[in-house]
Amino acid sequence: MLRCTKCNRVYEEDLRIQCECEGTLLVERKYSSFAPQRRYFDMRRYLPYLPVNERFLPYLHPPVTPVSKVKNVIFKLEYLHPTGSFKDRGTYVTVAKLKELKIKEIVIDSSGNAAISMAVYSAFSNIRTHIFVSSNTRKEKLSLLSSFGAELHIVEGDRMKVHEEAVKYSRENNIPYLSHWLNPYFLEGTKTVAYEIYEQVGVPEYVVVPTGSGTLFIGIWKGFKELFEMGEISRLPKMIAVQAKGFESLCKRSNSEANVLADGIAIPNPPRKEEMFRIIKESNGSCISIGERVTRQALTELYRMGFIVEPTSAVAYAALKFFEDEGKSFVVPLTGSGLKLHSSF
Amino acid sequence: MLRCTKCNRVYEEDLRIQCECEGTLLVERKYSSFAPQRRYFDMRRYLPYLPVNERFLPYLHPPVTPVSKVKNVIFKLEYLHPTGSFKDRGTYVTVAKLKELKIKEIVIDSSGNAAISMAVYSAFSNIRTHIFVSSNTRKEKLSLLSSFGAELHIVEGDRMKVHEEAVKYSRENNIPYLSHWLNPYFLEGTKTVAYEIYEQVGVPEYVVVPTGSGTLFIGIWKGFKELFEMGEISRLPKMIAVQAKGFESLCKRSNSEANVLADGIAIPNPPRKEEMFRIIKESNGSCISIGERVTRQALTELYRMGFIVEPTSAVAYAALKFFEDEGKSFVVPLTGSGLKLHSSF
Repeated sequence: MLRCTKCNRVYEEDLRIQCECEGTLLVERKYSSFAPQRRYFDMRRYLPYLPVNERFLPYLHPPVTPVSKVKNVIFKLEYLHPTGSFKDRGTYVTVAKLKELKIKEIVIDSSGNAAISMAVYSAFSNIRTHIFVSSNTRKEKLSLLSSFGAELHIVEGDRMKVHEEAVKYSRENNIPYLSHWLNPYFLEGTKTVAYEIYEQVGVPEYVVVPTGSGTLFIGIWKGFKELFEMGEISRLPKMIAVQAKGFESLCKRSNSEANVLADGIAIPNPPRKEEMFRIIKESNGSCISIGERVTRQALTELYRMGFIVEPTSAVAYAALKFFEDEGKSFVVPLTGSGLKLHSSF
Repeated sequence: MLRCTKCNRVYEEDLRIQCECEGTLLVERKYSSFAPQRRYFDMRRYLPYLPVNERFLPYLHPPVTPVSKVKNVIFKLEYLHPTGSFKDRGTYVTVAKLKELKIKEIVIDSSGNAAISMAVYSAFSNIRTHIFVSSNTRKEKLSLLSSFGAELHIVEGDRMKVHEEAVKYSRENNIPYLSHWLNPYFLEGTKTVAYEIYEQVGVPEYVVVPTGSGTLFIGIWKGFKELFEMGEISRLPKMIAVQAKGFESLCKRSNSEANVLADGIAIPNPPRKEEMFRIIKESNGSCISIGERVTRQALTELYRMGFIVEPTSAVAYAALKFFEDEGKSFVVPLTGSGLKLHSSF
C-alpha cells in the first residue's frame, strides 16, 4: 500500500503521488527476510522487494554498480547506469508500474538527469512522455530530449511557472503528472542502492549523499530501514545530507555565494523536506552545505582519482573534509556521469 | 606462462609482448574448475582466473555489466565501464601486472578508448604514461588525454610513423612499449566478458563482435575455451567477427565506400590476425563486413532502443540483419559509450 508520511492515511498501490492532505507518500510492504535473487547482477536481484511484477520490467536493467575503496572512503559508482545517473533505478520501477497500470502517456517537468532517464526508458517502452521545461533550458538539452522522442513543452517563466503549466496540462488532458520528487515508486528504485551497499561492504558508519529533492537520500535510508526491519542488519548508518550553498532546504540557508555548479541539487524547497529532517534526526546524522569553489576542487580530485563524474557528485566528497575521519567509514555515492550526452551522432 | 601463438615457445609471465619469432603471445594457465568469488559483482569475481595478485588490483573495478534481452538478441552493455568502454577490463589487469613488476613508466601509441582507459588508470596508479599520437588527432582528444596527466608525444605522420616513433622512444629510454594489440595481459581482462555471459545467460549460439585489433574477439573466445577446458560447459559459441568496410583484415577487403564512422575497428592489419582466422575456423564462425550507411541506421535503432553507444558498437547489431535469425540466439557486446568525454568541467 501507499502511506502518507504526514497523516498516515493509506491507499492502494496505484499512481497516486500525494495524499489528500497533500502529504507525500511512501510504498509500505512487509518483508520477512532478505533473499536476493543471486542469479542476477542487476536490479532484478531485488525483485522480491520491488512493488512491481517481473514481466513489466524494462529490458534495460540498472546494474549492481561497483564500489571503489580509497582509504577510508567507499565510493559507490552510481554514474555507471544506462543513461549516466542513479535516476535509472527510479525510472526502471516507475516504468514497470506504468506498464502494469496500462498507462501510455505521462507529464513530467524536469530537464535534468531524471528527464533524460525517463525520456530514454519511456521511448522504448512505448510510453509518450510530455516534458515541460523552461525556455531558459539549453538548446542542446532540448534537442537531446526530443531526439529520444519526448514531447517538449517549452514554458516562458521560472521553474515554478513550468511546474504550474505541467500540472494544468495534466489536469486538462487527464494525463498523469509524475514528478519524480513525489512519485513513491521512484524511491522503490533508489532504495536498492542500500541493498547493494549492504551486500558489497556491509553497513557503513556514514552514508554521505548529495541532497536536493531527496530521491537518493530518502531511498537509501528506506533500503537500510527495510533491511533492519527484516532482521538482516542490527544497526543503521548515520545519514549525511550534503547540499549546495544558496539552495539549502535542510541546512541553514546561506546568503553568500550560490553554488550553481552543483545544479542537480539546486532545489531550495523540496516537497519531501520533512521526511529528510526526520531521517537526519532518527539516524543521528547531519546536514552540510558546500560552496562552489570547494565543489570544483573536489571534482578535480575525483577526476584525478579516475572518477569521471558531474559536479553535483563532487559535493558529497567535498563534505568529507569537514569530518574528523579517523577510524570512521564513509560510503559516498557518485551520482551522475561526467560524460556528456549529445544529440548528434 | 606466456606461449607464442606461432612457434609455441614459452616464456615466464613478465612484460613481454612478442615472441623472439615475432609471434603474438597468450597467457596460458591450467584451471581445474570454475568457481567465481560470489561475494563480488565486479572483475574481482574472477580473480582465480586472472594472472595477477589481488593486492595489485586498481580500486576502479570494472563491473559485471548488465545484459538486455530484446527478442532473440542479448546485448551485453560493455559501455557501462568507468571510462566508457570494455577496454577498462584489459587495462585493469595490465595495471595490476605493472604494479606487481614495479614498472612506473610505459609507452603506448593509441588515441582511442584504450588510451583514455590507460591514461585514467595509470594516473591514479602513479604510472607515467607516454602516449604517442598523430598530429592529426583532434585537439579536444589531446587536451582530454593530457588532463588526466598523460605525457603526449605528437608525431608528424601517419599511424605507422607514430608506431615507429613510439617503439624508438621506448628503446632509447628503456621504457616498456605496451601496445594493447599485443599485450597478452589485456586479453586476460577481456576474457572475463565470456565468464559473465556464461553466468548471466549461459552459452549462446552466436557471439557477434565488432572486430579490429581483436582484443575483444580473442578475449571472449579465450574465456569460453577456458570454461570448456575446465569442464564447466560442453559446447562453444560460433564467433562472428564484424568489420568495417574498407578496413577488413579477415573478410575480403572492399574497395567501395570506407566505413570511417566505425573508427574503433578501422585497423586494416592487426598483429593478431592469424589467431582470429583460427578462431573463426575452430568455432565454425564467420566474418561480416559492414558499410557506413548501415552502421548509421543501426546506431539510430540502438539509440531508440535505449542504448547510448558509439558508432563502432553499432556494426555488430547491423550484422544481425544478414542472418536468418529464426530460433537462433545471439549475444552482441555493445563496446563503447555514446556519451562523450570532455576535457573541461
